[in-house]
Amino acid sequence: MGEVRKLDLEFAAQIQQRIDLKTKPLGALGDLEVLAKQLVLIFSQGLSLAQFECARFTITQPQLVVFAGDHGIAAHGVSIAPSEVTGQMVANFANGGAAINVFCRQFDWQLSVVDCGILTTPEPELGVISQRLGTSTSCFTTSAAMSHQQLEQGLAYGKQLVENKLNRNSNLLAFGEMGIGNTSSAAAIFSALSGLAPEQTVGRGTGVDDDVQAKKLRLITQALQFHGEHLSTARDVLRCLGGFEICQMVGAMLAGARLQKAILVDGFIATVAAMLAIEMEPNCRDYMIFAHNSGEQGHSKMLAYLQAKPLLNLELRLGEGTGAALCLPILQSALAFYNDMASFSQAQVNDVVSV
Amino acid sequence: MGEVRKLDLEFAAQIQQRIDLKTKPLGALGDLEVLAKQLVLIFSQGLSLAQFECARFTITQPQLVVFAGDHGIAAHGVSIAPSEVTGQMVANFANGGAAINVFCRQFDWQLSVVDCGILTTPEPELGVISQRLGTSTSCFTTSAAMSHQQLEQGLAYGKQLVENKLNRNSNLLAFGEMGIGNTSSAAAIFSALSGLAPEQTVGRGTGVDDDVQAKKLRLITQALQFHGEHLSTARDVLRCLGGFEICQMVGAMLAGARLQKAILVDGFIATVAAMLAIEMEPNCRDYMIFAHNSGEQGHSKMLAYLQAKPLLNLELRLGEGTGAALCLPILQSALAFYNDMASFSQAQVNDVVSV
Repeated sequence: MGEVRKLDLEFAAQIQQRIDLKTKPLGALGDLEVLAKQLVLIFSQGLSLAQFECARFTITQPQLVVFAGDHGIAAHGVSIAPSEVTGQMVANFANGGAAINVFCRQFDWQLSVVDCGILTTPEPELGVISQRLGTSTSCFTTSAAMSHQQLEQGLAYGKQLVENKLNRNSNLLAFGEMGIGNTSSAAAIFSALSGLAPEQTVGRGTGVDDDVQAKKLRLITQALQFHGEHLSTARDVLRCLGGFEICQMVGAMLAGARLQKAILVDGFIATVAAMLAIEMEPNCRDYMIFAHNSGEQGHSKMLAYLQAKPLLNLELRLGEGTGAALCLPILQSALAFYNDMASFSQAQVNDVVSV
Repeated sequence: MGEVRKLDLEFAAQIQQRIDLKTKPLGALGDLEVLAKQLVLIFSQGLSLAQFECARFTITQPQLVVFAGDHGIAAHGVSIAPSEVTGQMVANFANGGAAINVFCRQFDWQLSVVDCGILTTPEPELGVISQRLGTSTSCFTTSAAMSHQQLEQGLAYGKQLVENKLNRNSNLLAFGEMGIGNTSSAAAIFSALSGLAPEQTVGRGTGVDDDVQAKKLRLITQALQFHGEHLSTARDVLRCLGGFEICQMVGAMLAGARLQKAILVDGFIATVAAMLAIEMEPNCRDYMIFAHNSGEQGHSKMLAYLQAKPLLNLELRLGEGTGAALCLPILQSALAFYNDMASFSQAQVNDVVSV
C-alpha cells in the first residue's frame, strides 16, 4: 500500500503553548485540547513555520463513506435480520432515509455509498458506487471468508476510492458500514488479533436474544479453531474472517493515512478495520480519532486495546458511520477554540496559570 | 415562584412508537432515542393530537446565559486565580474572546452575560446585563453567604430574565457561570443537600494543588459545621452557602421549567443549581437535560444523585456553559432523526424488529 508516515511533531510544542495561553485554566477544555492538538498536527504537516503561524485550521469537505457487504455467516441466523436487509438498507441510504443520511445532511458530510459485494446488485439509478467482490463472503466457520484475490482487490478498491473518487480537498475521512452478520466477523477478527476469548468479544449486534447470542459465540469459537495457525498476519485474519466491507475500509484507512488525512473511526466494525490497518501500518494510528464507544459489548475492549479514548458514549449500536457523523461538530469546536479564543494577553486576563 | 407542571405524557406512547418504527434495530440510537423522546415530549406540551401528528420538532432560538458572581470565600485563596479574574473574564465574554463565545458563535446560541454581583461593575458599553446583588457574597465559613433579601432578589432576577429578557420564541435554555471560588460554594451546597462528606464533593476547581485543595476542604467542613441546623431547606442552603450567580441560575431554571422550556444543565456549578431547583420544585427535573460529566470530582456523584446520564464525557472543567453549548448539535440530531428518518414501511425495509 505504500508507506504511512509518522506524524511530524515539529510544531507540537507551539501548538501546546498556543492552547495553554488561551483564557482558561490549564487543561480545562479536557479532551477537546487533546483533539485540537492532534487535528492541528495533522493539518499542519508540510507547512513552513511562517505558513503554520498564520494558518487557520478547519475541516474542509468532510467525506463519509458507507461500505456495504454481505456475509456468509449470516446464513446461520446470527442477526435479527436476514441478509436481504443489507441491500434494502443500501437502497435506504441511496434514497436518503437512513440515520446516516439525516446526520450527514445535518453536519454537511459528503456521503458516498459503496457496494462492496452484497446479495442483490443495487439498481444503477441509486448512484451506489460499485466495487463488488462477489455476492457475499463465504461462511468463515468452514472456509476462508474470501480468496487471496478478493482480499487484494478489496484493499485496492478501498485505496482507489480514497485516492481517486473522494474530493482531494477533503481533510477528514470517516467510514461506516452496513452488512448483516458483520458484528460476527468483527468479533472473530478482534479475538484473532487480541487473543481475547470470544466470550469477551462477541456481543448482541443488532440486538439478538440469548439463544442467538450463544449460537454466534459457538460459531465464532468454531471458526477460530478451524483457521487456527492460518491467522498469523493481519492480512490472513482479514482474509479468513473478514467481510468485503471491512476489507475495503482497511484499504481506505491505509490510503487516507498515507495521504495524511484525519481519519474518524466509527464503531465496532470500523474499529476492527482500524486495528487491521494499524497492524499493517502502525503509523496509521497517528491519524485516527475514535468517535464513540458503542453499545456493542467488545467495543470498549477494542478501544482499550488501542489505548483510544472515544469522544462520545451514547450507547449507539447502529453502525452506518452514525457515531462518526455525530462527532463532526466536536472536531470543529476543537479547531474553533484553537483558532479563535483569546489569549490571556489579548484579553487582558491575569495569566495565573502558565506563568 | 409559581408551580412547575409535571410533563404531560399524553403523547409518550406515540413518540416511542415513531422512534421504534425508524429503519434501525430497536434502541440502536441509544441515548439519542431517550433524548428525542424527552425533547419531543417537552415541545409537544399543549398541542392537540392533530397538531402533534403533523409537527416537526426543532430547537428554536436557543439561549445561553452566563451568570457571573464573586465569592467571599475566594479571599482565602481557594482558587488558582484572584477574584478580579471574574470581572476580567466577564469583559472577555462581552468582547467575544472566551471559549463560550467561540462555541456560541459556532452553534448559533444567543448569548447573554449577567453581572449578578462582582467586585468591579463592568463598563456599560460592554452590554453586560446588570442584576447586581452586591460586590461579592460574604465568606460562608463565618456567616451566611447572602441575606434573605439578596436571596429573594436573586431568585426574582433569574426569573425575570427568563420571563422578560430572553426571547419568548426560544424553546431551549442553557445556563453557564463564572465566579472565582464557586466550586467551593457548589461543593458545600452539594454536601449540604446530599449528606456526602466534603471529601466526596470538594475537587480541584480550576486546578489547585494539594495544599490549596486541603485548605478548601477544611474551609468547607468548617462552613458546614458553622451553619449546621440552619441548612434544613434548599432556600437556606442557597442563602448560607450559595453564590449570587448560583442563586440567579436557580431562579432562571425554575422560571424556564414553569414556561416548559427544555433546560440544558452544564457542569458542576450548574448541576448544583439544578439540584436546588429540583429540591424547590421537583417537577423541574422533567425539563432538564444534563449536558456533560465534567472533570471536577464530585460532578459524577451529583449526576448519580440525580440519576442523570450526561450526554458528553470530555473532561471539561471550564464552566461558562461550555459543556452545554457543545451539546446543541446532539439535541438537534435527536430531533432530526425523529423528524426525518424513514420508517420501515416508507423505506421498504423488512421490519424484523418491531413485528
